[in-house]
Amino acid sequence: MSVYDILKKWNVKDYKLIDEQAIKDITLGASILATGGGGDPEIGLLWSLNVLKEGKDIVLIEPEDFPDDAIACIAANLGAPVVLTEKPPSGDEVRCSLEGLRKYLGHPVEAIIPPEAGGVNTPVPMAVAGVVGIPVVDADGMGRAFPELQMTSFYTHGITPSPTASSNEKGAITIADTKDGIMTEHIIRNSAMAYGGNSWIAGYPMTGKQLKNAAIFNSVSKCWELGRAVYECRKHHTDPIERVSEILGGTEIFKGKVVDINREFGAEKTKGFSMGVLTIEGIGKDKGSNALVSFQNEWLRLEIDGEVKCLPPDLILILDSETGEPIRTDIVKYGYRGSIVVVPADKKMRTDEGIKAFGPKYFGYAEDYVPVEKLINA
Amino acid sequence: MSVYDILKKWNVKDYKLIDEQAIKDITLGASILATGGGGDPEIGLLWSLNVLKEGKDIVLIEPEDFPDDAIACIAANLGAPVVLTEKPPSGDEVRCSLEGLRKYLGHPVEAIIPPEAGGVNTPVPMAVAGVVGIPVVDADGMGRAFPELQMTSFYTHGITPSPTASSNEKGAITIADTKDGIMTEHIIRNSAMAYGGNSWIAGYPMTGKQLKNAAIFNSVSKCWELGRAVYECRKHHTDPIERVSEILGGTEIFKGKVVDINREFGAEKTKGFSMGVLTIEGIGKDKGSNALVSFQNEWLRLEIDGEVKCLPPDLILILDSETGEPIRTDIVKYGYRGSIVVVPADKKMRTDEGIKAFGPKYFGYAEDYVPVEKLINA
Repeated sequence: MSVYDILKKWNVKDYKLIDEQAIKDITLGASILATGGGGDPEIGLLWSLNVLKEGKDIVLIEPEDFPDDAIACIAANLGAPVVLTEKPPSGDEVRCSLEGLRKYLGHPVEAIIPPEAGGVNTPVPMAVAGVVGIPVVDADGMGRAFPELQMTSFYTHGITPSPTASSNEKGAITIADTKDGIMTEHIIRNSAMAYGGNSWIAGYPMTGKQLKNAAIFNSVSKCWELGRAVYECRKHHTDPIERVSEILGGTEIFKGKVVDINREFGAEKTKGFSMGVLTIEGIGKDKGSNALVSFQNEWLRLEIDGEVKCLPPDLILILDSETGEPIRTDIVKYGYRGSIVVVPADKKMRTDEGIKAFGPKYFGYAEDYVPVEKLINA
Repeated sequence: MSVYDILKKWNVKDYKLIDEQAIKDITLGASILATGGGGDPEIGLLWSLNVLKEGKDIVLIEPEDFPDDAIACIAANLGAPVVLTEKPPSGDEVRCSLEGLRKYLGHPVEAIIPPEAGGVNTPVPMAVAGVVGIPVVDADGMGRAFPELQMTSFYTHGITPSPTASSNEKGAITIADTKDGIMTEHIIRNSAMAYGGNSWIAGYPMTGKQLKNAAIFNSVSKCWELGRAVYECRKHHTDPIERVSEILGGTEIFKGKVVDINREFGAEKTKGFSMGVLTIEGIGKDKGSNALVSFQNEWLRLEIDGEVKCLPPDLILILDSETGEPIRTDIVKYGYRGSIVVVPADKKMRTDEGIKAFGPKYFGYAEDYVPVEKLINA
């Protein structure tokens, strides 16, 4: 059965066929929305371009067109981004975890949904869908990237990550099936560490009905629009930061140069995350000011001159001021120049359950959550 | 289908029905063969006695009678024994991992084989078999207890532990399916730690043909004979140490009093094992001598007055000189008086693969393996 047989069965006529340029646009847009995390976009990009070259079709469908009783799952990379860069995938890893999930569920899944917006975890699910011959749903569970498996609108709307299957390049499979999303995260994170720091997962099986209630709609399209716009800016030498802010409803809040990176050394191996605090010294209109950005795979908390300006789940983007290229937590270096853009999180991420699951307190910050639009106007 | 339907299907007429006294004998014998590990026998005993009280039959069959094409698996507790004592099972945990294994394999298993001889891991598989209504095979994979999942004659005869399913008291399931037995051990050990230090597992699915090639035969019967003999000695006030040595072909090598326990504090939580070194000061004919016993859940290495006297996989038993009750690594205290008996491991544990997988070097000891019968006569 091909992806088109599935579309026919579901009577879906309105879908998007993803070509090479689309994959490039989507990957760039997703890596911007990844808020410093999400891993090296080259890895996700190369894999999905290969899938297209092999003649597979990658088909994007509207969440509304995914039938209520069909089953979708996420496909993703999980682990420390820096380890991923050292250990790129062969392409079989996610198929292996998908097969583990199928064996455990007793039936295959019929569509893939990206878990988050990320340079790896947006194109990778698209590549997997292409290889397996099922559609990708134009939605995700974060509208950004976050470090832990249970930090999704899926979870805060009643869908547990279980069962989730995790694999490595040698065909190892770990399956976690627990009611407790944080325990599932622990088990899957531990398996990534047993594999050497990184893993490829398939999980969060959900019905179409659950998906429509819990997912953030049209996030893939948003990545696409964003990436296309930034490529346009580069071509016409217009300001990408302004354009990104406009598309996302965000605000450019700071411009500066990285003067210090206080990394928690070895956290990739011991905790499975890249962790630390970045110091950015203001330039131009921000000269004399300092920004501190705390990270755990993603930029999480922004403080400017001692005042908190953005807290999770709201988005902190640090982009190269000239090219709009995102600066990532795993590769940021002393001397990088960038603009900080803050963006309100999707409303499905701002529920009480959301603030509990991935708000400031969960990450160990002292502050109560205040929406970014209030913080920047305070 | 009851256990008797299975016996009929296989045309097995020669089986043993395990009653309360048999369970008590087997559990005592197994806890002696557990070489200081294997956990609190009360926990395994109480559970299996409850199963008998509920009217379930526990049926022991000869390994020769288990059909070549039928599938058996182990059922066991895995984790630090001291945590097990704090967190006794409800009885549902192993059924839960057995169900996880069934889901993943796509079919149920038809018999249970104990992984090792242990106060917990001999009666527990018997209880599980009784509850599920399938027979127990009179065999095991160690003829003793050992701390890690892959340290079995199964593994050194070509059977991997995968897939193994692990559960906790809240119904969490982790499944590990890897070609690499040590990685399976890591993943399952990590899941035990995610559960709080302990887990209940079902795994090592094997055909009857594989079992007959790899398992140590009649180990349950040997535990039974051993336990019965020690109870007899207690009744008639005869020497249990002499009797145990006679049945196992072992040698009483030292008698003394525990004067020091150098525990690796917290290893239960960080490594998932009880670890340390015991010092025993000689009494009676051994006065003036000192024995050092290193342990990782089990007694592993014995040194008397600076000379190595026993190395893994050979067995070190430390038994109360009066009652024959085994002294365990998780509860040993200053002042305990005991006799040390050393016993040659089963020949299936002494292959080159066995010495590589669970000989002195694997545990980090400097010595090459020398059979205990040579060491004590040196």
